[in-house]
Amino acid sequence: MSQKQISFNAFAMNCISHLSPGLWRYPNDRALEYKSIEYWQDIAKIAEKGLFDAVFIADVLGVYDIYGSNDLGALRNAQQVPVNDPLCIAAVGAAVTKHIGFGITAGIPFEHPFPFARRLSTLDHLTKGRVGWNIVTGYLPSANRNMGTTELPHDERYDVADEYMEVIYKLLEGSWEDDAVILDKQTGHFANPHKIHHIGHRGKYFDVPGIHLCEPSIQRTPVLFQAGASARGRQFAAKHAEAIFISPPNKEHAKVLVKQIRDELLRAGRDPHSAKIYLGATIITDKTESLAQAKFEEIASYGSVEGILVKYSGWLGVDLSRYELNEPLNNIKSNAIVSLVDALRDSTTSEGKIWTLKDLIHNERIGSLGPKIVGSPQKVADILQEFIAYSDADGFNLAFATTPNTFKDIVEFIVPELQKRGAYKEAYVEGSLRHKLFGKGDRLDFNHIGSQYRVGGAKSTINDFASTGRNPSKEVEYEI
Amino acid sequence: MSQKQISFNAFAMNCISHLSPGLWRYPNDRALEYKSIEYWQDIAKIAEKGLFDAVFIADVLGVYDIYGSNDLGALRNAQQVPVNDPLCIAAVGAAVTKHIGFGITAGIPFEHPFPFARRLSTLDHLTKGRVGWNIVTGYLPSANRNMGTTELPHDERYDVADEYMEVIYKLLEGSWEDDAVILDKQTGHFANPHKIHHIGHRGKYFDVPGIHLCEPSIQRTPVLFQAGASARGRQFAAKHAEAIFISPPNKEHAKVLVKQIRDELLRAGRDPHSAKIYLGATIITDKTESLAQAKFEEIASYGSVEGILVKYSGWLGVDLSRYELNEPLNNIKSNAIVSLVDALRDSTTSEGKIWTLKDLIHNERIGSLGPKIVGSPQKVADILQEFIAYSDADGFNLAFATTPNTFKDIVEFIVPELQKRGAYKEAYVEGSLRHKLFGKGDRLDFNHIGSQYRVGGAKSTINDFASTGRNPSKEVEYEI
Repeated sequence: MSQKQISFNAFAMNCISHLSPGLWRYPNDRALEYKSIEYWQDIAKIAEKGLFDAVFIADVLGVYDIYGSNDLGALRNAQQVPVNDPLCIAAVGAAVTKHIGFGITAGIPFEHPFPFARRLSTLDHLTKGRVGWNIVTGYLPSANRNMGTTELPHDERYDVADEYMEVIYKLLEGSWEDDAVILDKQTGHFANPHKIHHIGHRGKYFDVPGIHLCEPSIQRTPVLFQAGASARGRQFAAKHAEAIFISPPNKEHAKVLVKQIRDELLRAGRDPHSAKIYLGATIITDKTESLAQAKFEEIASYGSVEGILVKYSGWLGVDLSRYELNEPLNNIKSNAIVSLVDALRDSTTSEGKIWTLKDLIHNERIGSLGPKIVGSPQKVADILQEFIAYSDADGFNLAFATTPNTFKDIVEFIVPELQKRGAYKEAYVEGSLRHKLFGKGDRLDFNHIGSQYRVGGAKSTINDFASTGRNPSKEVEYEI
Repeated sequence: MSQKQISFNAFAMNCISHLSPGLWRYPNDRALEYKSIEYWQDIAKIAEKGLFDAVFIADVLGVYDIYGSNDLGALRNAQQVPVNDPLCIAAVGAAVTKHIGFGITAGIPFEHPFPFARRLSTLDHLTKGRVGWNIVTGYLPSANRNMGTTELPHDERYDVADEYMEVIYKLLEGSWEDDAVILDKQTGHFANPHKIHHIGHRGKYFDVPGIHLCEPSIQRTPVLFQAGASARGRQFAAKHAEAIFISPPNKEHAKVLVKQIRDELLRAGRDPHSAKIYLGATIITDKTESLAQAKFEEIASYGSVEGILVKYSGWLGVDLSRYELNEPLNNIKSNAIVSLVDALRDSTTSEGKIWTLKDLIHNERIGSLGPKIVGSPQKVADILQEFIAYSDADGFNLAFATTPNTFKDIVEFIVPELQKRGAYKEAYVEGSLRHKLFGKGDRLDFNHIGSQYRVGGAKSTINDFASTGRNPSKEVEYEI
């Protein structure tokens, strides 16, 4: 059994039903409080108590409307709708914590990089360097309809995203030199403007000539999260991501995916471990095995059949309302069905079984696509360590069944058990989220593509003052 | 002297030098802390202690680059650059206060109404109904360059803005009926989806067919602020605004402007007092007249000449670097010069004087375009009451010279003096920002254009479920 350190993120979303439809009505569940500051501050405090890396906030800007070809099921079950904006969660969470990071999801098609770069810097300032950005390249079709945009072909979405990232890097890394801010009280000069550069970006999708509007924050570029699973998505992630989230159903799949990602990082010229890989998982635990199993059965009984079908119709791209509940899954045409059946097979012991839609529902009463791990602290810790040792992943993105109790249980039972085994940190490292993750300082690694856009010192690749088209300056001499 | 209640807003911006360039270096000034959560929480607490209506956060998404035809002066003096995003200030401020409102500036050209409506609802949820939105229709030219957009003709900007508002109203007021959220734990139904409507908006500038992604917040539409001064701008404000911010130099100008606004409100079919009118002002005060005057002189000596010229070049649309300091202001060609000279004339007693650029600088060492009121609590209170009685305005948007001390002084000296005179509230009313301002509940007034977009009950003007193009529903009967 490996003594590799295991990392945890709390996986959540600014909505009622993130991954476990129906559970909002479980006794003491606080999902309905998602609209309040206090709820998010409590989540942040619990995650920080458990020394988690980050609270990771998913997002969609649309509705799951494949099931029944309408949005009625999603709305009835609050299945990721209503869904509030994730941005301010990082700020209110940071107000009551000191270490925990915040991974905020934001989609490239839905905000121009110039104002979005300002939002990123603002959050990194407010949190004192504790922000991550989960880069999403596309969204649900209903989002495109409401934005008046047409969905780009899958691979072109990544071309847009690559240029978008270039603009972001130029603004965050390449506009203000490290010593641009001088705070000279004598002259009244806040900055030396000759060390603040117009980025002069002219591209296929964006023209951004000016300076970045914000002074440098601790991390400058937030820690970059990504969850792309396609070949082009993995290539994008290998170029940009520092934390990657995947949801393989079992440790064998995890091993294959992790190796693909590490190989792709190597091909991109990066250290294969320069991106943390988190596996999606849902843990139900208690003091003893039997208490944990009983808790699971009780929680699962609150699951919503329609909510699960809405969620899986969205994920599989198949309207499951067109099938009877005893339909064998293999009859359902979807590329995603194969790995789904694998997931189901892995989650039980009955190998030869023909899986039906009803089995899917029963099996997916709680949690995310990844494994559902139920048991005593010792059993869960065994499974987690085995996953990590076998797959070479770095940690888990932990979905909740009930909130915040799923997280509380993990903090109370699993974290101490892993610590006892030397497999979980005993305290936070001081410093930014990036420094906490990699121990190499606050800024993007020198080997990361984003660091190539730095200006000043050894790394100046951007046109300096003389070529930025500024007019010469006239200084005023007059005592006020 | 009128006993009309006077309202205060704290006027600020997520930057170092908002309206008083150079003052960031004044002893104990905390402007450099604008990047921190603690600073904004302190501002909110001070304003709440003083029973202010709101902290009003200005914003620009560009740089003041008219002075010298470059951005060097703005950057040297931190004159509204760097400037961070204002959105999260409301959330972190609300986390430590109970009553104070937050007016957040956001420009229509820079975010599509579909995701922006979600940000508004999210903030109104997080603050429990304490958010206002300051609607800006355009921005600095440098912002347009960086967004890859070209500036629309002035009046067409308001046409876009009118349609933008229509989309916002349809989403916030017209998508979810009041009783759409049912929270039925028995059936697991969070909402009755038939009471959640697709807005089906097809317009000249926007197509938004879908539902609003958020459930209704306390105010639904945040309190609408506006500051448009042109004829078309006033017309827009009279149609939409519930709080209007103007900066006349003296009470005579204030009276004229307030009357124009109230008349325009009447013409728009609204109660002339259904919008609160706040006058920009800067107050320097202390226990006694002589202490206040000494404080003013000391503070003003920290002003930045270049910063003032950068700011006024931007406001006047004239590059003041092309003039000598002894240039008479009347020789400078700008539409805004006339009222500026009025402002200067009003601020001193020397009526016949020929005002030069140097006089402008000297006179504008601190504060906003509006009056600079310096004196003992009694004197300042006299002037404020006189302004309000004479002009029929409702209150003041208070700029700071040093932060947060300008606000602290007002809370310590002016608020109690006005309370003693019966001219300032003694406590907050319970309820949302809108209810605090108007005492008529949380929602838009029935007479406000936005309320016409409500659905359900007596006010349904939007196509109901049957015509929203949804496919019929199939309910699943299966016990989990």
